[in-house]
Amino acid sequence: MNYPNSIKKKPQKNEISYSNRGMDLEEELNISNEYYREIDKAYIYKKPTPIGVANVSYNMRGKVIEKGYFKEQSTLDYNGLYRGKYIEFEAKVTQNRTSFPLANIHEHQIKHIRNILRHQGIVFLIININNFVYLLKGSDFIDFIDTNERKSIPYPFFKEKGYLIKYGYRPTLDYLKIVDEIYF
Amino acid sequence: MNYPNSIKKKPQKNEISYSNRGMDLEEELNISNEYYREIDKAYIYKKPTPIGVANVSYNMRGKVIEKGYFKEQSTLDYNGLYRGKYIEFEAKVTQNRTSFPLANIHEHQIKHIRNILRHQGIVFLIININNFVYLLKGSDFIDFIDTNERKSIPYPFFKEKGYLIKYGYRPTLDYLKIVDEIYF
Repeated sequence: MNYPNSIKKKPQKNEISYSNRGMDLEEELNISNEYYREIDKAYIYKKPTPIGVANVSYNMRGKVIEKGYFKEQSTLDYNGLYRGKYIEFEAKVTQNRTSFPLANIHEHQIKHIRNILRHQGIVFLIININNFVYLLKGSDFIDFIDTNERKSIPYPFFKEKGYLIKYGYRPTLDYLKIVDEIYF
Repeated sequence: MNYPNSIKKKPQKNEISYSNRGMDLEEELNISNEYYREIDKAYIYKKPTPIGVANVSYNMRGKVIEKGYFKEQSTLDYNGLYRGKYIEFEAKVTQNRTSFPLANIHEHQIKHIRNILRHQGIVFLIININNFVYLLKGSDFIDFIDTNERKSIPYPFFKEKGYLIKYGYRPTLDYLKIVDEIYF
């Protein structure tokens, strides 16, 4: 049993926010992906959170969960198909202003990122830090882990290696523009 | 609210079954995919069934679902990465001996199959009919729909266009062997 949303706190009201209409990162990505589907650009979905079902009952309309628990995703949150390629990514928000704590990405997710890289999939992180949203390539993330003893990625690393995703009207977060630039 | 497992009945005991140890098709595919991951061959997962959460409570260990409903998958059940390619498929069992009722595949899933094909993903169905397991290419499935008024796919169509997946020890259902033959 886990606390899958515990680190996804919304920005504090007194902070300057560059994000759109107070939506959280997950919402912003969901509506961006919806827009990409509408214009037939990409088919990328957030995976449903896996549920452990403890008790069920039945009513006239079918099976009802009477007790259930949120389980941890062993892969990354979003995956799909873009320009013939497999794409997978994780989205995280940190309230930490100086670094991104690596505890946000679980050990089995790190292993999964390595697997996707080895099998030629496109894999990255989308991280909201200091209210800026960066795309960080999976390969740069793994390089950082493999060459550092640190428990967090300092903010300057995102400025150096990450790609800033700009907010827009539609899509809200045009992260595929960055994907086009760096993977194709 | 839906009945996601309503058509996945297990074979009757008095039928000759070619399936492994009485597992159902979903279990067979899950352990096959697990094996593929173990040997670092492919990263293909069953998507969790999406849940509509109606009530939650909190205990010391986190959020608990007190009432929830199974929702319908708008995509196909399994997706992932194989040999650098995006792969997605749906698995169905029919108890019907002479044909596969098209009602098993929802309208939005058919649309999704067309989208995946248009964007160069690998997409197919795995269907247990008459206790034989066939892989049917998404393109052949769509051709059937577009050129027929029928409400079901007759069994001879599977024998003609489908690819028989044989049962083995590990993996239980080596469907990637067929994928190798027809997509690479």
